[in-house]
Amino acid sequence: MNIVLIGAGNVATHLGSALIASGHKILQLYSRTEESATALSELLNVTRTTSVDEILTDADLYVVSVKDSVLDEFLPRLVSRNKEALWVHTSGTIPMQIWESTSALRYGVLYPMQTFSKHKPVDFQQIPLFVESNNPSDTELLMSLASSLSRNVHEASSEQRRALHIAAVFVCNFTNAMYAAAARLLENNGLSFETMLPLIDETAAKVHSLSPHEAQTGPAVRNDHNVMAKHLQMLDCYPAEKEIYERISQMIYENRLR
Amino acid sequence: MNIVLIGAGNVATHLGSALIASGHKILQLYSRTEESATALSELLNVTRTTSVDEILTDADLYVVSVKDSVLDEFLPRLVSRNKEALWVHTSGTIPMQIWESTSALRYGVLYPMQTFSKHKPVDFQQIPLFVESNNPSDTELLMSLASSLSRNVHEASSEQRRALHIAAVFVCNFTNAMYAAAARLLENNGLSFETMLPLIDETAAKVHSLSPHEAQTGPAVRNDHNVMAKHLQMLDCYPAEKEIYERISQMIYENRLR
Repeated sequence: MNIVLIGAGNVATHLGSALIASGHKILQLYSRTEESATALSELLNVTRTTSVDEILTDADLYVVSVKDSVLDEFLPRLVSRNKEALWVHTSGTIPMQIWESTSALRYGVLYPMQTFSKHKPVDFQQIPLFVESNNPSDTELLMSLASSLSRNVHEASSEQRRALHIAAVFVCNFTNAMYAAAARLLENNGLSFETMLPLIDETAAKVHSLSPHEAQTGPAVRNDHNVMAKHLQMLDCYPAEKEIYERISQMIYENRLR
Repeated sequence: MNIVLIGAGNVATHLGSALIASGHKILQLYSRTEESATALSELLNVTRTTSVDEILTDADLYVVSVKDSVLDEFLPRLVSRNKEALWVHTSGTIPMQIWESTSALRYGVLYPMQTFSKHKPVDFQQIPLFVESNNPSDTELLMSLASSLSRNVHEASSEQRRALHIAAVFVCNFTNAMYAAAARLLENNGLSFETMLPLIDETAAKVHSLSPHEAQTGPAVRNDHNVMAKHLQMLDCYPAEKEIYERISQMIYENRLR
């Protein structure tokens, strides 16, 4: 497949690298700013442009991986470059129907569910990819493309994808926020965050063999008011963490008997 | 060392098994209820009692691993069995000074920082152990005992241990609560929690090489109001999750520039 990649953020970087590693041809990279266009085009060794009017018109597939907030305005301009090709975006949140406001005839979604940081390599073969399109043959085509990138490929409707994305925010972004809160507490007490790594790893490993509900431990699920009161007292000088401690403990307690 | 183990919960179970595996001798197990005393004494192949008055008086070390909330009342009764031996509790929250209200002469803490579930084996050698005592020679003795159980042994003051315990609640109990919230959302949308495992593993793996602050991704740190508004709308029928979504997102945003 001849592909034009639109965007140069974390998702575009990792997806672009995976496409090339799997033998696909990226004809061109578009990014709004010269700086990010240059950086990623050099990494991928492909030509680049920062002008929509220079986006190549002869690709089979256009992969749009830019901030959700600009899609509404940006997609119609992009699609005017090639209405016959297959267009996909990579967002977890944006429904496939966003393409209906463009002149694209064939469109869909290719959503990689992973946390990407620019400088941290990932094993793309492990990453769950969720695919959707507006016609069966392009769904098949996207499933086949996705299967060349990952061993973990699924079809998902726009509504399912939105649920997946919220779930991903909880297990990834919010989990990392729990790590960050712990790191701040430890730092202020002269302790190293590294001591937490075995516990972090075991907490992640546990839900491979137990459901999160079965795996829940700690003062909240035991309803241990003594411990929680002592913790809340120590969190007096951390108002955000204190409120989050109370609210999550309550959620754990309310769900203990499900 | 000849040891009496007091308690038969998750910590006592894993610590008892690790003590025996490392060649220590558990003389006796005490538990309040016949049922749990029997179960653990059979697992460890040691004698048991459910009566404080039958606790052996000739051990070198008494390890007390019971609910924090009963310690105040329970410790003085226990210590009356042997005032000369070394007494430790295993709690993250309870300061060492709790022993001052007993007649124990030598006392301290042996705190294993890990999430224990009865039926999930753990590699005790990886578990961080934090040690404190009321005199240097017993600190040394406990450090040496701890080092026979784990490669990850530290001294920590009572105040540091409390910070460690709160941090552990965040990275373990609250992280698992994030997993559980995701599992509920996915289940209600016909999706399997298993699809989250690569993301969960990568989120944990990331903080081995990046600080949690550097590793933070997602709509909150990008201040992406479009995505967050869509997520909050979808969470309308999950009031607890919705409030937690808002509060954690705010904490992530407030800490983005630290």
